[in-house]
Amino acid sequence: MEEIKVTFQPEGRRVYALRGMKVAEAAARAGIIIDAPCGGLGNCGQCRVEVIEGVDAPTPEEEKHLSQEEIKKGYRLACITTINKEMNILIPEEVRLHGQKFLTEGKRGRVKFAPPVRKALLKLPEPTLEKPQPDWENLNSALKRLAPHNAGHGVDIYMVREISEILRRNKFMVTGILDNGKLIGIEPGDTSKCIFGLALDIGTTTVVGSLIDLNTGEQVAVASAMNSQVVHGDDTISRINFASKSSDGLNKLTGRIIEVVNNMIGKVCKNAGIDTHDIYYVTCAGNTTMHHLFLGISPRNLGTMPFVPAIRRSVSLNAQKLKIDVNPNGRIYFLPNIAGFVGADIVGVILATGIDKAKDIKMAIDIGTNGEIVLGSKDRLLACSTAAGPAFEGARITHGMRGAPGAIEKVIINQGEVSYEVIGGIEPQGICGSGLLDLVAEMIKNGLVDNTGRLLKGDSFVVAEVGKRKIEINQRDLRQFQLAKGAIRTGIEMLKKKLGIKDKDISEVFLAGAFGNYIHPENAKVVGLIPDIPLEKIKFVGNAASEGAKMVLISQEERKRAEEIPARVEHVELSIDPLFNKEFAEQMLF
Amino acid sequence: MEEIKVTFQPEGRRVYALRGMKVAEAAARAGIIIDAPCGGLGNCGQCRVEVIEGVDAPTPEEEKHLSQEEIKKGYRLACITTINKEMNILIPEEVRLHGQKFLTEGKRGRVKFAPPVRKALLKLPEPTLEKPQPDWENLNSALKRLAPHNAGHGVDIYMVREISEILRRNKFMVTGILDNGKLIGIEPGDTSKCIFGLALDIGTTTVVGSLIDLNTGEQVAVASAMNSQVVHGDDTISRINFASKSSDGLNKLTGRIIEVVNNMIGKVCKNAGIDTHDIYYVTCAGNTTMHHLFLGISPRNLGTMPFVPAIRRSVSLNAQKLKIDVNPNGRIYFLPNIAGFVGADIVGVILATGIDKAKDIKMAIDIGTNGEIVLGSKDRLLACSTAAGPAFEGARITHGMRGAPGAIEKVIINQGEVSYEVIGGIEPQGICGSGLLDLVAEMIKNGLVDNTGRLLKGDSFVVAEVGKRKIEINQRDLRQFQLAKGAIRTGIEMLKKKLGIKDKDISEVFLAGAFGNYIHPENAKVVGLIPDIPLEKIKFVGNAASEGAKMVLISQEERKRAEEIPARVEHVELSIDPLFNKEFAEQMLF
Repeated sequence: MEEIKVTFQPEGRRVYALRGMKVAEAAARAGIIIDAPCGGLGNCGQCRVEVIEGVDAPTPEEEKHLSQEEIKKGYRLACITTINKEMNILIPEEVRLHGQKFLTEGKRGRVKFAPPVRKALLKLPEPTLEKPQPDWENLNSALKRLAPHNAGHGVDIYMVREISEILRRNKFMVTGILDNGKLIGIEPGDTSKCIFGLALDIGTTTVVGSLIDLNTGEQVAVASAMNSQVVHGDDTISRINFASKSSDGLNKLTGRIIEVVNNMIGKVCKNAGIDTHDIYYVTCAGNTTMHHLFLGISPRNLGTMPFVPAIRRSVSLNAQKLKIDVNPNGRIYFLPNIAGFVGADIVGVILATGIDKAKDIKMAIDIGTNGEIVLGSKDRLLACSTAAGPAFEGARITHGMRGAPGAIEKVIINQGEVSYEVIGGIEPQGICGSGLLDLVAEMIKNGLVDNTGRLLKGDSFVVAEVGKRKIEINQRDLRQFQLAKGAIRTGIEMLKKKLGIKDKDISEVFLAGAFGNYIHPENAKVVGLIPDIPLEKIKFVGNAASEGAKMVLISQEERKRAEEIPARVEHVELSIDPLFNKEFAEQMLF
Repeated sequence: MEEIKVTFQPEGRRVYALRGMKVAEAAARAGIIIDAPCGGLGNCGQCRVEVIEGVDAPTPEEEKHLSQEEIKKGYRLACITTINKEMNILIPEEVRLHGQKFLTEGKRGRVKFAPPVRKALLKLPEPTLEKPQPDWENLNSALKRLAPHNAGHGVDIYMVREISEILRRNKFMVTGILDNGKLIGIEPGDTSKCIFGLALDIGTTTVVGSLIDLNTGEQVAVASAMNSQVVHGDDTISRINFASKSSDGLNKLTGRIIEVVNNMIGKVCKNAGIDTHDIYYVTCAGNTTMHHLFLGISPRNLGTMPFVPAIRRSVSLNAQKLKIDVNPNGRIYFLPNIAGFVGADIVGVILATGIDKAKDIKMAIDIGTNGEIVLGSKDRLLACSTAAGPAFEGARITHGMRGAPGAIEKVIINQGEVSYEVIGGIEPQGICGSGLLDLVAEMIKNGLVDNTGRLLKGDSFVVAEVGKRKIEINQRDLRQFQLAKGAIRTGIEMLKKKLGIKDKDISEVFLAGAFGNYIHPENAKVVGLIPDIPLEKIKFVGNAASEGAKMVLISQEERKRAEEIPARVEHVELSIDPLFNKEFAEQMLF
């Protein structure tokens, strides 16, 4: 089936959709969930999107729901309009499932809007000689009235030191900040309308932050930044080594990521026009190494057998303890880990894809520096990590590069003729992961490579020539690619075996992560990266880890669910399986 | 009845006992409880004390239990030997109720030895590829096995940062430090035999610390020191003013008391030959102002109506947060307060005297800068504070001074002839509280003062002449004395009225505090400081607040009891009672 490029704005996120697919479904592949109250039947007219390029004539249904002016401007309904050519589409905030409408209206669709960290306005009685209630007890009585079943609050000396003045600054009207009902801060007067949260996805390479108004649920700013730890190594293993070898290596890495996050906080707050102290809750997803480094925990033992983390369960702590520039009473919450190489990011992926609640068997593949795979359903969940290495991020490939402008991202070979697309439409600088996957698949289809991965013509294959410089793939690059795809596919096959299922038993495959989001599933099947599963079962879920962080930001229910996930997931250590070597050797083949 | 001075060593504590009283009872008046397993029947022979001066011939019972050599050395049984002349007696540590014997043998007598803060040796399984348990979860599983009903432990990021290295430093054998079953620290290897605690009584003037081995219960060192906050005012009100008026006044006062405590910690540790890091638990008693200043809480509102504390309940926090030089994982625990002027010290007095558990009605009077009174039984407890002022501490009296060497501490007037005793047997420098009380009582008895407090002969009465310097009492001094004793007696009478009882309903009166410990009860009755209660019902309990701090140091059960006390005590605010002025005017009279 033909695949067509669709770009979603304002993110500029691109996906390849199948011809005839609905815009809503393609958006979902890009990780953008459109709120369709009618369930996609086309009869509520809510899912209005603006088609900037590639607009078709409206359907009769669309004409019914949209004004002539809207139709002229390119407005269409996402659940009706189909994709027949390359499109560029703006998805307004208000039709997004995580946009304001959804989040403010409570439980609807997937996530119940009830942020774990919230504010409560408290009007306390002023003490008198007849009833000289101590300030702390006065406050606690009010909280008790608010939530009679709460077991009581611990004593925080810093709050005790402030309370008397805070109570008296505004005639005993104060705002309490609560984390799952527990008091974490107090402010004079009524500040209850001002509370923001930040969901962070702390990746080995990139950090993404989403600023959300915790009163309305509205996402008010997004930012991404390089993880500046890369100067000390571009993958987790080199970071672990750096943190373990030099005496202050850990402090340096922790300092760098805290700095990146603080800069990001400054940026999103400036964009949203709020103060950094208006942020009271920060949720974090990331792999286990990023988790440790962010929290100032040595990752040394993640690098040696048996690869145990210092801690698995979720960590929640005061922002000041980590020197994070949000409200001094704010909480930093890191999702739990599953294992040394299956981290909080994968808990986020499970949350966002709902595999843990699925009736049918589903699979999620998160391809970054390592490939993590989750397989199962609500009855049983398996997860593993694979030592895929960074080939899909363009590393260790002669002309490899990240998916940045100048990267060849799509390749077609037709009767020896190579055509390609370059990100940003500029001169090609190298080839990124999705381009590499295309290239290898096309070489296989065109008989340029045999099933053992051997180049059949010459020492290398030239994709592009820019002046005197050639962008080509050689035998060593092919082997790197084989190792990466073989590792991931081995993981998939071993989890399937462990669960005792076949490809046909898998009802959905979620491709997550930066790389997963841009590949052509057809070609992924050609090279054998993923099993031969019908294309319509393959979903792109974008940055699912980040989505998971947002879910625990806005929902106490989801946070509880996240905390239950690690104990429910069976972590499969591939290397100790006696069948591993045989399987891996097989899966190296095309 | 004649009163005889008895001194107890090694403290050098002096009390006045009635002729014929048993040594054990006199010791109790000095706050030293002797462990008599037979219950004082004289048939176990355990309560051996050494009479240094004033020894009598042994009784037949004593001859049965003591060797000839022991008898020659002055050993006697405290429950048998009676007081007939001035005595100087050494009470060995091993016969004291809070000495080693008592504390190590569990529940016996009053207090169950089970310190809230304790250590537990944990031998964890080493993680393997088959069972790669994360370190924190590994530790928590071990704690769960130790105490299956414990609800689980919070996550302390500082401990998480240390755990991996600590586990691996000694092959996964670690010592956990637990506070009421909750993990507060971990150490590599087996350090379970090393754990000390410090009980602090933080007075406005004096700080007393007792170092106790929490494995054996043995008291290994004691120290006392001036509270150096006195340079900023000698009573609580002036400290409150100092803390409230200047911007860094609070920091200065908090800094001073922390410094005093840290110096004391250094001293007791040096004396006991241990490291300051061997202390894991510090319990504190003190009035509400001292409580606030020690914890860095502004006492401003204690100084203005309606005199509310910032917090009433007990405060428990990590030692590092207060910069207390004990183990970095150590806990600082401050007993709860009752009200703005009935503090944690009075909770300590209630604990030590057991009024909250008494079947009959009892009264405790703690006379320091203010007089606090507790009256009641297990059924109902009342407490009040009285604005007695510091007259009993020698302040605001022309020739007043503290009970230090050179202070006239005892006065007798016989037919116009004044005789007196001076602390330290040196030249008199002034007159202390107990001397003042004696002096006024003797003046009343000798018709030198009328019942309104008017001096009947001249403007002043000379007690002593040293060279050209006269030590005398004038009309103004007498008024100060009347205000002080009137305030306390008013409190006593109003509590009695509120409880609806008469003097005869009171089964015991406990006199606590530095002043209470040295007064002559007979004279206290003459001046009307205390009601006309038979002398045998009056008990000296010494530094009962300090005793209370020791009890919560060594017993989880007592700590729980302490925490229940504030809610059980009805705090009576004397000043809002319409009868207060009338009562006070009456009680000013002799």
